[in-house]
Amino acid sequence: MIGIAVVGYGYWGPNLVRNLAEIPEARLTHVCDLDKGRLRAVQARYPTVQITDNLEEVLRDPRVDAIAIATPVSTHFKIAMQALMSGKHVFVEKPMTATSEEGRRLVEEAARRNLVLAVDHTFIHTGAVRKMREIVDDGLGEMYYYDSVRVNLGLFQHDVSVIWDLAVHDLSILDYLLRERPVAVSATGMSHVLGEPENIAYLNLFFESRLIAHIHVNWLAPVKVRRTLVGGSSKMIVYDDLEPSEKIKVYDKGITLSDNPRNEGERVYDMLVGYRTGDMYAPQLDMTEALTRELRQFVSCIEHDEQPIADGAAGLRVVRILEAATQSLAQRGRVVDLGLARMIA
Amino acid sequence: MIGIAVVGYGYWGPNLVRNLAEIPEARLTHVCDLDKGRLRAVQARYPTVQITDNLEEVLRDPRVDAIAIATPVSTHFKIAMQALMSGKHVFVEKPMTATSEEGRRLVEEAARRNLVLAVDHTFIHTGAVRKMREIVDDGLGEMYYYDSVRVNLGLFQHDVSVIWDLAVHDLSILDYLLRERPVAVSATGMSHVLGEPENIAYLNLFFESRLIAHIHVNWLAPVKVRRTLVGGSSKMIVYDDLEPSEKIKVYDKGITLSDNPRNEGERVYDMLVGYRTGDMYAPQLDMTEALTRELRQFVSCIEHDEQPIADGAAGLRVVRILEAATQSLAQRGRVVDLGLARMIA
Amino acid sequence: MIGIAVVGYGYWGPNLVRNLAEIPEARLTHVCDLDKGRLRAVQARYPTVQITDNLEEVLRDPRVDAIAIATPVSTHFKIAMQALMSGKHVFVEKPMTATSEEGRRLVEEAARRNLVLAVDHTFIHTGAVRKMREIVDDGLGEMYYYDSVRVNLGLFQHDVSVIWDLAVHDLSILDYLLRERPVAVSATGMSHVLGEPENIAYLNLFFESRLIAHIHVNWLAPVKVRRTLVGGSSKMIVYDDLEPSEKIKVYDKGITLSDNPRNEGERVYDMLVGYRTGDMYAPQLDMTEALTRELRQFVSCIEHDEQPIADGAAGLRVVRILEAATQSLAQRGRVVDLGLARMIA
Amino acid sequence: MIGIAVVGYGYWGPNLVRNLAEIPEARLTHVCDLDKGRLRAVQARYPTVQITDNLEEVLRDPRVDAIAIATPVSTHFKIAMQALMSGKHVFVEKPMTATSEEGRRLVEEAARRNLVLAVDHTFIHTGAVRKMREIVDDGLGEMYYYDSVRVNLGLFQHDVSVIWDLAVHDLSILDYLLRERPVAVSATGMSHVLGEPENIAYLNLFFESRLIAHIHVNWLAPVKVRRTLVGGSSKMIVYDDLEPSEKIKVYDKGITLSDNPRNEGERVYDMLVGYRTGDMYAPQLDMTEALTRELRQFVSCIEHDEQPIADGAAGLRVVRILEAATQSLAQRGRVVDLGLARMIA
Repeated sequence: MIGIAVVGYGYWGPNLVRNLAEIPEARLTHVCDLDKGRLRAVQARYPTVQITDNLEEVLRDPRVDAIAIATPVSTHFKIAMQALMSGKHVFVEKPMTATSEEGRRLVEEAARRNLVLAVDHTFIHTGAVRKMREIVDDGLGEMYYYDSVRVNLGLFQHDVSVIWDLAVHDLSILDYLLRERPVAVSATGMSHVLGEPENIAYLNLFFESRLIAHIHVNWLAPVKVRRTLVGGSSKMIVYDDLEPSEKIKVYDKGITLSDNPRNEGERVYDMLVGYRTGDMYAPQLDMTEALTRELRQFVSCIEHDEQPIADGAAGLRVVRILEAATQSLAQRGRVVDLGLARMIA
Repeated sequence: MIGIAVVGYGYWGPNLVRNLAEIPEARLTHVCDLDKGRLRAVQARYPTVQITDNLEEVLRDPRVDAIAIATPVSTHFKIAMQALMSGKHVFVEKPMTATSEEGRRLVEEAARRNLVLAVDHTFIHTGAVRKMREIVDDGLGEMYYYDSVRVNLGLFQHDVSVIWDLAVHDLSILDYLLRERPVAVSATGMSHVLGEPENIAYLNLFFESRLIAHIHVNWLAPVKVRRTLVGGSSKMIVYDDLEPSEKIKVYDKGITLSDNPRNEGERVYDMLVGYRTGDMYAPQLDMTEALTRELRQFVSCIEHDEQPIADGAAGLRVVRILEAATQSLAQRGRVVDLGLARMIA
Repeated sequence: MIGIAVVGYGYWGPNLVRNLAEIPEARLTHVCDLDKGRLRAVQARYPTVQITDNLEEVLRDPRVDAIAIATPVSTHFKIAMQALMSGKHVFVEKPMTATSEEGRRLVEEAARRNLVLAVDHTFIHTGAVRKMREIVDDGLGEMYYYDSVRVNLGLFQHDVSVIWDLAVHDLSILDYLLRERPVAVSATGMSHVLGEPENIAYLNLFFESRLIAHIHVNWLAPVKVRRTLVGGSSKMIVYDDLEPSEKIKVYDKGITLSDNPRNEGERVYDMLVGYRTGDMYAPQLDMTEALTRELRQFVSCIEHDEQPIADGAAGLRVVRILEAATQSLAQRGRVVDLGLARMIA
Repeated sequence: MIGIAVVGYGYWGPNLVRNLAEIPEARLTHVCDLDKGRLRAVQARYPTVQITDNLEEVLRDPRVDAIAIATPVSTHFKIAMQALMSGKHVFVEKPMTATSEEGRRLVEEAARRNLVLAVDHTFIHTGAVRKMREIVDDGLGEMYYYDSVRVNLGLFQHDVSVIWDLAVHDLSILDYLLRERPVAVSATGMSHVLGEPENIAYLNLFFESRLIAHIHVNWLAPVKVRRTLVGGSSKMIVYDDLEPSEKIKVYDKGITLSDNPRNEGERVYDMLVGYRTGDMYAPQLDMTEALTRELRQFVSCIEHDEQPIADGAAGLRVVRILEAATQSLAQRGRVVDLGLARMIA
């Protein structure tokens, strides 16, 4: 059995604790937080877990094989690096780090020590996104666009813009869905509170192919929307995460192209566009809680010396895009090259 | 009674004809089209109207006070200019012209001859958009953003991109809603059919204020969406044009800002963000057909020597933005200044 | 070519006229109405059609093979009977007659003279209802229930209750979908306007099998709903007629029954109920206008001496149920036997 | 502080325990259940609570002021009676008892001993239903109809029909909303599993006024629906419990009645029906968990010797309607008089 300590018991930590307390392959050893009140709360619910505000103590404990980090982003790097250097496997909240430089160093350290470095890209473990991947792999045809709207009246954050808070979900989903990596990003947005980061933003991702990806994130919307359109040459998908059961709808719709016989010789590329409409279907989805699946996979990777789907490299790619988007945002949407291919030797 | 001839009896022309045949202030004199079959069709339905494929004949006829143009965009300028030079008032489909230079010349010609030049920005005459204008003028507070999604599986056009076909609606609505004019535009997009114009595009409009406007248009979407979010400091609006009756929903939601007393002296701009939620209401809307209202207004402007809401200057501003967006689209979203203030002397 | 005269140019007549003017197999000969203003309106649109307020004149005309009746229900019998006795085929609005006795006499007269008697059960010619029939015939399994809600803020009628106005649609759909006929009906409802017929009603249809059908109709609802749930042992259907394209959704959901091994010998019928959930799909539907399809079929029946899907017997069954439901309504839902089997010798 | 023991830790018991552990006015003393595994589960989460499978032990304990019963319906009477006879206040799950005779005896016993007898009609403590009551009291006008649809693919129960499981919610809501009591009930329905109770049912409630209430409940529906339409002479309400925030929509719509001047002297009651449409609004709702509010009210009633909103008499009225509906169901909808006025001396 793998011993795991949770560091950070704020917004997301309780979900890690609840799941780790229930999956049979893991043993929840410690919960570590600086807030004594939070620690008492966890102790009341989970009397057998050890509570502490001392990270060193946790990292020294030989029963601890891995730590799960759910602290603010700015602290991820330091805690994760300390854990890796203590020989512990690491499961860290998204975004993995605050800079790509930090991310690169974590990836290298984990590789050097042959430790598992997993990033909590939760959405890619949902039944909905896994089904999308199936369709993308087999049936969608060439992907034409990925368009996501993720807006609501949300908690304004003071240290990071809405991109780091919300677009990170789409970036992790895209990283999982696609075999192709984006080459550049641009972002526009606005802060409507003086001195605070942007609360509305629009991201464009550019690819070498004809794929275009666009993400709209907004903390100041009157309604909650979580809707992604994916257009392909053979099928199109609408993914609405707020639908209770039919989250994924697959449309047998699109265009068909054929040479225009009348124009041969004239314009080489002239084509006839036809329209195709067919049935829609909403496949049944696996309703397992994403975090449960994800933590079991993390444990399994430790046991079998394997890499998780969202490994350090995935976490780093997402951080690099967030970083470049933030740069672009400050320059009214200047296109920023990503250089993802060069990131990891 | 004002005599009006319709030029162009293709997709939109029949709506002009039907409305002109019914409003009591106008007399539909001619329908002019190059296609004999179309002319026979209109004759069968409206036996008293004169049909012709000869524009000169129409423009010479003294019973004709005005012409309504519903031909392809590329021909608008030539026909409208000819009409103005024949002393006829002009009602022209949107977009008004194919270039801002053409637009400028029409505006000047109409002004010189003291003729009415009206552009068919249909949406601004709907009950929904007129109600939005009321709320924007009185209740919304500072406008923070305008975000519109206008997508469906639509007819691919061969001469103009999806921007000219669909974003033109939002640009005309914005021109009507706002007192402020955009200063710059950027656009990204993609064509998924070799040799054809872009079928998906994203526009950003930049303003001197903190307003940000964004428009998503797409001919290749599996579902039809016509949804606009408008965020203000006091109220927020969701405008869903596909709703049969409750097209406009007004949310008494948003953020409240107050100085953070604990941080005085430290960070000048630090503010406490609070959240405000209240009732939503869907005001009853005037359901008069927009085109009817618009054509009656056009006739009334001719009779009383007044300017229509969507006059040549409005048409020109919209064309200028379309033109600049097209430039930007070709350069992966480079920001293009609009210079709207300098356009008309 | 079959010559057809339309009698009655009020609410529905214009749809008959428009369709008959366009289908190539028929020739619209006359429009007959008592209102001179209505006749002038039709003449203006269709200059070649003959207008008259004299039904005898129409029935004497040898160019008239059939008449289509769109007058108030109370007049259907008299006009249809006169037409049949003049040797004309008849297409009559639903409900076919005001009483089952009238209906029975029309059916007999048409049979005796070997004339086509068709009832305008429009919905059964829509792509949606035809697709439902396909699924009911092949895939639904045993039909467990049919539950329809048909409510809106509708025009109160003064001569008939909401049952005759709205439930008639569901009764005609059920008559088409099922091979089994209901054996009894009960209805409850209420009038909220003194001296007027019921504006809200609930109908139950009883069958010899375990099928139960229920229809809710209401002229005084704040929202428009047109939604039918059909439950079967293998599949379930949601038919929402207000959906623009996905009107029919088929759910691979339900219960599975198996003998409970633990209880053998004890309770004979004890069974284990299991639950089955699977994909949902929305089949593509034929979007041909129902009335076009229906009128072409009527013409074809005349030409080939065949019976239409909604023949006089179908019309009579629907009228009989309406009549019995009206009786029940007056007695707080007393169950009224239908005796459909005995209706037609 | 009021000491409360929870009896029954199955489906609903955990919600009682969680709430009682958190409200400051109460002290959760025991959890009593026959299942040892369930008791161990509660002990692990709430180490300070006393667990037991012996009800007598609980009722003897002087620290216990009241018990909350969440056992199967068939056991409610016996446990509640025992508790009352031990001088304990009682909070019991809905439906209060299995028969109205049982209910009557509980009500009498509680009155005789001056103990609080509260029934867990949870819905009437939600923000949505409380807002409806406000509107019904002030603004709706005369209530014309209450129409509820409560269907989904639900757990088939073996001891009670879908009426006892689902319609009980609407009956408790109606009991709370109305000042008028129903005089009779009828119900139709069907069992689709041999030997099991009805899984689909339709209830009609009759009143002395023109109000009509109708409830559709179904365990075998492909989609989940929780939608109630309430029509009044001044306003109409749509209550959709599945909407995340806008559960209540109030429509300023309806009919207006005026004397028909043309018909005076002819038909006394002839009236002109006019139509009125106006704004819709969705009032903000209190989002407090209903059960929290309800349990605090129960404690407050004990402390101040007051009666809860849903007292034993309310519980009894609901049970009486369920009982009469069950009778009617067995006789194809025969109207059964309720005699609610005579129930409690």
